[in-house]
Formats: sequence, C-alpha cells, structure tokens
Amino acid sequence: MSTNEMRKDYLIDRWVVIATGRKRRPTDFVREREVRRGAVCPFCPGNEHMTPPAILVYIESDGEIVKERDRDGFRHKGWLVRCIPNLYPAFTPPRVEGSERDIEKKRWRDYTSRDALGNHEVVVESPNHDEHPGVARISQLIHVINAYKDRFSQLIAKPYVGYVSIFRNHGVDAGASLSHAHTQIIATPTIPRLVGEELEAAREHYSKYSECAFCSILEREREGPRFIWENDSFIAFTPWASIHPFEFWIFPRRHQGVITDMTETETEDLALAMRVCLGALNRLLNDPSYNFGFHMVPDAAYHWHIEVYPRLAIWAGFEKSTGVYINVMSPEAAAVNLREAAEREEEALTGSQRHL
Amino acid sequence: MSTNEMRKDYLIDRWVVIATGRKRRPTDFVREREVRRGAVCPFCPGNEHMTPPAILVYIESDGEIVKERDRDGFRHKGWLVRCIPNLYPAFTPPRVEGSERDIEKKRWRDYTSRDALGNHEVVVESPNHDEHPGVARISQLIHVINAYKDRFSQLIAKPYVGYVSIFRNHGVDAGASLSHAHTQIIATPTIPRLVGEELEAAREHYSKYSECAFCSILEREREGPRFIWENDSFIAFTPWASIHPFEFWIFPRRHQGVITDMTETETEDLALAMRVCLGALNRLLNDPSYNFGFHMVPDAAYHWHIEVYPRLAIWAGFEKSTGVYINVMSPEAAAVNLREAAEREEEALTGSQRHL
Repeated sequence: MSTNEMRKDYLIDRWVVIATGRKRRPTDFVREREVRRGAVCPFCPGNEHMTPPAILVYIESDGEIVKERDRDGFRHKGWLVRCIPNLYPAFTPPRVEGSERDIEKKRWRDYTSRDALGNHEVVVESPNHDEHPGVARISQLIHVINAYKDRFSQLIAKPYVGYVSIFRNHGVDAGASLSHAHTQIIATPTIPRLVGEELEAAREHYSKYSECAFCSILEREREGPRFIWENDSFIAFTPWASIHPFEFWIFPRRHQGVITDMTETETEDLALAMRVCLGALNRLLNDPSYNFGFHMVPDAAYHWHIEVYPRLAIWAGFEKSTGVYINVMSPEAAAVNLREAAEREEEALTGSQRHL
Repeated sequence: MSTNEMRKDYLIDRWVVIATGRKRRPTDFVREREVRRGAVCPFCPGNEHMTPPAILVYIESDGEIVKERDRDGFRHKGWLVRCIPNLYPAFTPPRVEGSERDIEKKRWRDYTSRDALGNHEVVVESPNHDEHPGVARISQLIHVINAYKDRFSQLIAKPYVGYVSIFRNHGVDAGASLSHAHTQIIATPTIPRLVGEELEAAREHYSKYSECAFCSILEREREGPRFIWENDSFIAFTPWASIHPFEFWIFPRRHQGVITDMTETETEDLALAMRVCLGALNRLLNDPSYNFGFHMVPDAAYHWHIEVYPRLAIWAGFEKSTGVYINVMSPEAAAVNLREAAEREEEALTGSQRHL
C-alpha cells in the first residue's frame, strides 16, 4: 500500500488527500440520473405569468438583440433569455435604497450578525427546457453569457453590493429544484470568504513577484498533466488540489478580473469553451449533476475564472468536521479522461451545430 | 418581505444566511430513507474474517471488559466492540515508523504537498447491525465511547500524528457505504483547518479575557433560545450560526480539551446525551442521514465537543464557490423542535432500556 499524497491548493490554505488506493475508472462514477419534472414548468415559454416580472429580457428583432424589462401585469413573450428575481431570495435589497446600510452588529462580547442585503436572481438560459450548456447551441450560450455580463455590471454598481456570485446547480443531486436550464445570481454585501482568501493570496503574490498568480498557474498548467482543452481565449484544466472527482476550472488566458472585461470575441470563445468542457463532462459521465461558480473581483491582482464541481462523491463527517477533503480521483487521471472526451466533443460539434 | 440575517460563527470567520422566507416545519425535511443492505455484512458477527485483523476488541468475561487484539489468521468472536483498520485508508502510517517524516514539500515557486501519514480505522459499534447511537442501549454506547478513548490515546501518542478525528456517517446520503453501525477514526499529521481556526480564536479569547471561549458560549446558550438538553455533565444546543438545518453541538460542561479527560461518570453521561439527542433527531425527522465529528485538541484553551450535521439540505453552487452558507431553518426554530423531541425521547427511555 503506497502512501497517499496531501496537496494544498495553489493559493488558499485548503488541503486534500488524493486517495487513489482503490483504482477508479470514470464508469465507477456514473450514476442513474434522477429526472424530476413538475407538471408545469414556470420557466417554459407561455408560463411567464408564473414568475415575477423579468428584470431583463433578450428578444430578437430584425436580427438584433433588444433588451427589455417586464412590468407588473405584463410579461414579454418570444424571449431568448430571461432574468427574474428569485421567489425565495436569500439576499434582498434595502427597502429604500440607500436608507439601510450594511452594518456588522456586535452585541455583548458576542455574536456577530448583519443584514443579508443584496439580490438573488435567476437567469432562464433558453426557451428550450433542456438546453443546458453541455448541449446548448453556441449562439444561445453567447446570449446567456451576455446576460451574465449585463446583470453583473448592474449589480456590482449598487452601493450595498460588494460581490456578485454567478453559479449553476445542475441536476437534483446538485440542488437544482427546477430542471429547466437556469443559472442563479446572488449579490452579497462583502467579498465571500473563499474568494477573499484567493484575492489576498493573489495580492501577496503580485507584490512579491510582480505577476498575476493565476497567469503563472495557467502558464504551468497549459503544458502539464492536468491540461484539458484550450482555444485562443480560454484554457481548461483540472486543478492540482482538486477537491471533487473530475473538478475542472476554466480561465481566460488574458489577464482580467471580471467577466465584463471580456471582448466580444472572448465571449464567443467562452461559449465554445463551456460547450466543449461541460459537453465532455456529460459525455464522460452520462450527464452527471454538477455545480459551477464564477469567481471574479474587479481588482488588478485578480483573474476571474469558472470552477466546475461534479457531484460524484459525498463530503462526509471527515470533510465537514475538519475542512480537509478526500478525493478518490487524481486530477491527473481525471484530466486524461476529460481531455479525450473534450476532443471527441469538439469533433462532434459540426459547423451547423455551432451556429444553429 | 423581511431582510434575512447573516450570522458569523462564534469563533471562526464563517458566515451563514438564515433564510427563513419560506416557512419550514420539521416534516418538510423528512425524506424517504434509502436502505442499502448488501447480501453479507462484513461487520456482523461471524464475518470477522472478511475484515483485517482487529486492532482492538472488547470482550466481556466474568462481568469485566477484556481488551484483545486479533492476529493474522485469527479473529476474536463474541465481541462487544471491534476496531479495525479501514480497507481503503486515506491516511497510512510510515512504512517503518520513525523512518519517514511528514515534510511539507515545495517545488519550484510552487505547489505544496506532503505525505498523507496517519491512520484510518473503523469502530464497529455493536454486534447488532442496526444499533446506531440514536437507538442503542446506553450500556453499549459506553463501550463505544470507551473504545473512542482507547484509540484516541493510542493514536495521538504516535510521533507522526498531529490530530485525531472521530466521525460518523449515518445513512447513504451522509456517505455511509455500509449500514452496520460504525464510526471512523482518522489520524492526520497536523491539526486540520477548521479545528485550527477554532483553536487560534480560542487562544486569543483566553489571552484577552482569561476564560475559555467555549465555556463562555455554554454559559450563554444554556439559558437561551437555542438550548436543547442537558444533564450533569453535558449540554446540547443549536449553534448561533448553524450551517445545516437542525445542526446541534454537544459539549462537556466541565472545561476539557480531549475525550480522554472525561471521568467515568462523564463517559456515562455522554452516552446518555448522545442517546437522547440523536434519538430526538430520529424521532423528529424519521431517522435522517447525518454526520457527526468530534473536535478536540489537547490544549488548555480548547474545549472538546461533538458537532452533529443532519443531511437535510444540499450545499450547492453558491456555498461551494463562496464558502458562505444558506440555512433555511433558523437554529432557534430547530431548537424548539429538538428540545421537545429530546424531552419525549428521555421519557421513553425506561430504566430497563437504559441498562439493557
């Protein structure tokens, strides 16, 4: 029995044991997908009245995208992408904007709390119920990413917002309560812990080496055993200290802090990167449940990216009570499989599928 | 719509949103339990040959507990509790003890790793397949806790061990791959992150206020809205910043760093506390999956305790990518329900059940 390796994350103080004692093939992770479909999907076209008025609607008109907004009692139809407030928001705006401030309250030597000020929205990614990014038309994914950019720039500008998290729960195991293709956006009062730690480490790295920590990681991962796929603007790899089996990250190759720094070409290249990499995950593991989250901070030392976490293992008592993770799939073995699947996925994307 | 509250943990920098917009009753959390039972249980009596030789076996002889150890090719029968090496250990001892040292390796400006030195063991809690702590005989639970104490003192003494984690995965959703009542023990080279942060905060509190941070928390929680249950030696409550619905913690009332500091009476009182509180969880939520983990450090500023995490919600893209949690059940509402269930559970424990 050989000794397992513990690995520390590139930047933050997070350790994982790569426990490969029991050899695993991708098929060992394939699970029956549970498909829950309610009688009526509130996100499908025709049911717009079942949701609150949309904050943002993309509608195609004479080959151009027009951006609209629903009003009370009126819902736009024939939309391409639709962004609505979450019916059960975790974070809410101050009742009168500017009237409440986010103040950390401390009582007697004591417990700390603050108002959960912010926003909680849903991006309905397509009129087609099942147009998830691993199978979507590239043209549709471009609309979705543009909607992310629009909502990000609106939310980050609000005085009570310190961070905007864009994330996706795919599949019942990943916490998706509705199966229609959708993303969530949560704006929070401060930079959350995980991203804050990355940012702090990145700033330190910058002041020490006069380079972006993430750019330096990309440079190394591009040519290493964890590389998956790249195009002109994006690169995907399994991170050195992956805490999930088949976890992978997608980075813009050009140094940029937030998604609104992307050019139009980069936006198109991201659509392709997401389509190929999430398609590869589908292909390899039979459409597994996964979460992904964007990490982004408008700071010169930061470099935005997407982290994709397939739900193939359960964090149990050890992980939950220690903060140390056990991953039974080495990121190097995961990369071999994902790389091959991404190649096949890209080949299968004919010109017509790309632009359907 | 009222604003939700974000709460910070007592000691560490961990935030949770208590999101109670959608009112929940305990029954909203009750799920169908999936019971997986293999054809042959390797932990049931008669199948001892299916596991590696036991490191520790408790056998009753003339009313006394005798502690034995299996040998290659020989397995003790008629045991009360059995501790065996995990077949697929995440952490393993150095091949020749003392020959390898746990050294953090740094490569070129760069990625950090170390050997996953330690131990990984399983405590089979009873010869009875289903004798989980929420339904166990108190007399049996005392054996189990004594086995924890024995293994803890052996493992913490090893030169390559810096921490010992005792944890339990109950139910398929909680990551239990075998349904026979069992606990896992993992010894790691260093104090893991979560516990390390608690320790650091507790030391700081001690140097500032000349008191144990945890003792001060207990004092307040004993009389507050999160109190669940207590006896002479232990107290249970839902923590102020619970990150799981119905999460609760069990603390010894006397200041002590590790479980081997417990007296015999305290050990018995812990058995009752676990039986009543985990029994209350069963009763309230129809035997839900849960994890628990002991937190303990042999340090004057630390105060050991058990954290119980019911698996009633899914941490999704937001939690995973930000490190901020959303809990849809307020700890105060959870405590009302658990308190009542614990009362009923204790009443139902007749004298004969207690000592069967």
